[in-house]
Amino acid sequence: MDYLDGFLEEEEEVYRHGGDIYHNNVKYDFSVNTNPLGISPLVKQKLYENLDMFEKYPDIQYLKLRRVIAAKENIPVGNILCANGASEIFKLVTEAVKPKSAVITAPAFSGYEYVLKAQGTKIEYYYLNEEKDFVADTDIIDKIPPGCNIIFLCSPNNPSGRVISKKVLLKVLSYCESNNIYLVADECFLGFVPDYEALSMKSEIKSNYLIVVNAFTKLYAMAGLRLGWCVCGNKGLLRAMRRLQPEWSVSVPAQIAGIYALKDKDYIARTRELIAEERIRMSEFFASKGIKVFPSDANFLLLKTEADLYKKLLEKHILIRKCSNFNGLERGFYRIAIRSYKENSILIDAIGNII
Amino acid sequence: MDYLDGFLEEEEEVYRHGGDIYHNNVKYDFSVNTNPLGISPLVKQKLYENLDMFEKYPDIQYLKLRRVIAAKENIPVGNILCANGASEIFKLVTEAVKPKSAVITAPAFSGYEYVLKAQGTKIEYYYLNEEKDFVADTDIIDKIPPGCNIIFLCSPNNPSGRVISKKVLLKVLSYCESNNIYLVADECFLGFVPDYEALSMKSEIKSNYLIVVNAFTKLYAMAGLRLGWCVCGNKGLLRAMRRLQPEWSVSVPAQIAGIYALKDKDYIARTRELIAEERIRMSEFFASKGIKVFPSDANFLLLKTEADLYKKLLEKHILIRKCSNFNGLERGFYRIAIRSYKENSILIDAIGNII
Repeated sequence: MDYLDGFLEEEEEVYRHGGDIYHNNVKYDFSVNTNPLGISPLVKQKLYENLDMFEKYPDIQYLKLRRVIAAKENIPVGNILCANGASEIFKLVTEAVKPKSAVITAPAFSGYEYVLKAQGTKIEYYYLNEEKDFVADTDIIDKIPPGCNIIFLCSPNNPSGRVISKKVLLKVLSYCESNNIYLVADECFLGFVPDYEALSMKSEIKSNYLIVVNAFTKLYAMAGLRLGWCVCGNKGLLRAMRRLQPEWSVSVPAQIAGIYALKDKDYIARTRELIAEERIRMSEFFASKGIKVFPSDANFLLLKTEADLYKKLLEKHILIRKCSNFNGLERGFYRIAIRSYKENSILIDAIGNII
Repeated sequence: MDYLDGFLEEEEEVYRHGGDIYHNNVKYDFSVNTNPLGISPLVKQKLYENLDMFEKYPDIQYLKLRRVIAAKENIPVGNILCANGASEIFKLVTEAVKPKSAVITAPAFSGYEYVLKAQGTKIEYYYLNEEKDFVADTDIIDKIPPGCNIIFLCSPNNPSGRVISKKVLLKVLSYCESNNIYLVADECFLGFVPDYEALSMKSEIKSNYLIVVNAFTKLYAMAGLRLGWCVCGNKGLLRAMRRLQPEWSVSVPAQIAGIYALKDKDYIARTRELIAEERIRMSEFFASKGIKVFPSDANFLLLKTEADLYKKLLEKHILIRKCSNFNGLERGFYRIAIRSYKENSILIDAIGNII
């Protein structure tokens, strides 16, 4: 059942993503993989100081925000488009490209399929191999059907957690360029990886076929503020996307938060340190309990177990991400976010009591 | 030139709406017609108290917000769709209807034309008559071409300010129903009118052809937060619109602000009182200066004068809305927002020094 079938009914509570803290009695949310440090105190302070600005129309060109992103990422201001979350970027790119045929991985973030289905696009699935830790390889090229218009790749992949090597991505891009296929490189979790600069495809934005997508949602714990962006060398495509966007899509709080998130100097360093340490601790714990843990470069772990973790943890008011609605993951897969030492310890204790 | 042509260039500053305080040296902004009371103190307090919630994903169904709107407006929860401003509603309705042919008034809010052009819709203009104070009448029905799919009407009309009588709207709706035409009734400024309940078309939402659009932008001075909504009896259309929307389109701050804006009990009463008083004072002043003032039911006034008010006021860091880019308004029309007593007095003094 599509969760939108009943969307407009009051009694309907079907949910497709993690993070539904509104219709569950949740004390600890491990279902959403946002930064455990939470919103930067600098961002909160600036939002508070600028509450009066919330009554003004946003800068329709969000120029200051784009300048800050451009400086931080070392990319041109004129190639950046900001949006109401990365999900709006995915929507705009499919609306602009109007693909007849697309390739996505399975498992993958459900948002790609969601926007492609709205366009009536025929979707080809590249099933990631459990034995290879669900990492995309160059054999994806063999799966690209003739007439394909767009490919979505996520690195690190959500929900499995491993990065795609730059070499593989470059080969895929090269194939795309020779065959007029757009490559959407989703890097929403790549900022959690210390090797971000070397792994990011933003180095290739001279390409006419590449759209690199990022967001403040996960890395800066700004899910509620809605701020995504992309960088793209194809100005025609970028303008077509912008033309399809509501005019003031990026709110004043999102613009302020984005600007100051990037000014909080050691936030990312502290994030990467915390994630690296806690990922080891949690992985070791799960392994000790006989739960299969897939290797991850990201701020979340994919688990496989026969135990009904979801239900038993929810009884303790702990929400994790049941992966059964990910195409390519049969029953028994769960995704958990890596949170703070304290929160992770609570999850460890709770699972210790279950298994 | 389309203002988006250069959107992505850093140096580009083309602007199509009021409210561009980002690229002008503006001390007093009369170009944007939002509530002069500003954001309710209750809303600001609740935003401040809930800064930690900005890191959570928004409720994807924004159920609490819809319940509060439903209770306030006496409409069913299941017929409400919220969005990233009314401009997203206009976009969604045109994307869902895919009209081949549309009728809009001239002058009118440019947003209708903007979204229709993105669909390649053929637009028929119903020119409002200056002698009749730019008020739409039932003769609009004669302008509806065969095969028309959608009509946009705004009451009070922006930028001219007069409400459309309920009788006229009902006649247009009746014609629309007999001819399979959707009627978009834009009521974004209707809340400023004391007779709101009697004038609103929300009473007709049993119709399959009516979409009543409203927003928090103007009436609750929340332009930066992006919150619009519509009510519609046609669930199929509503679901199609929702399907075309980014999944988390309504941010956490917008949801919180919307909920508490409606709980600030005397905010609207104070607003209406202020607007009524100041509208008389300002109208009398403009008339005394030989500036033609069109009668208005809204929180703004359309002026006509040979004096170059825009340029001369901008020299004094006062921004007003030059109307020359409104189809149907030749040079010499300006729209000014009705602000607080103090701000209005500053505008009066400034104009007194010019004329």
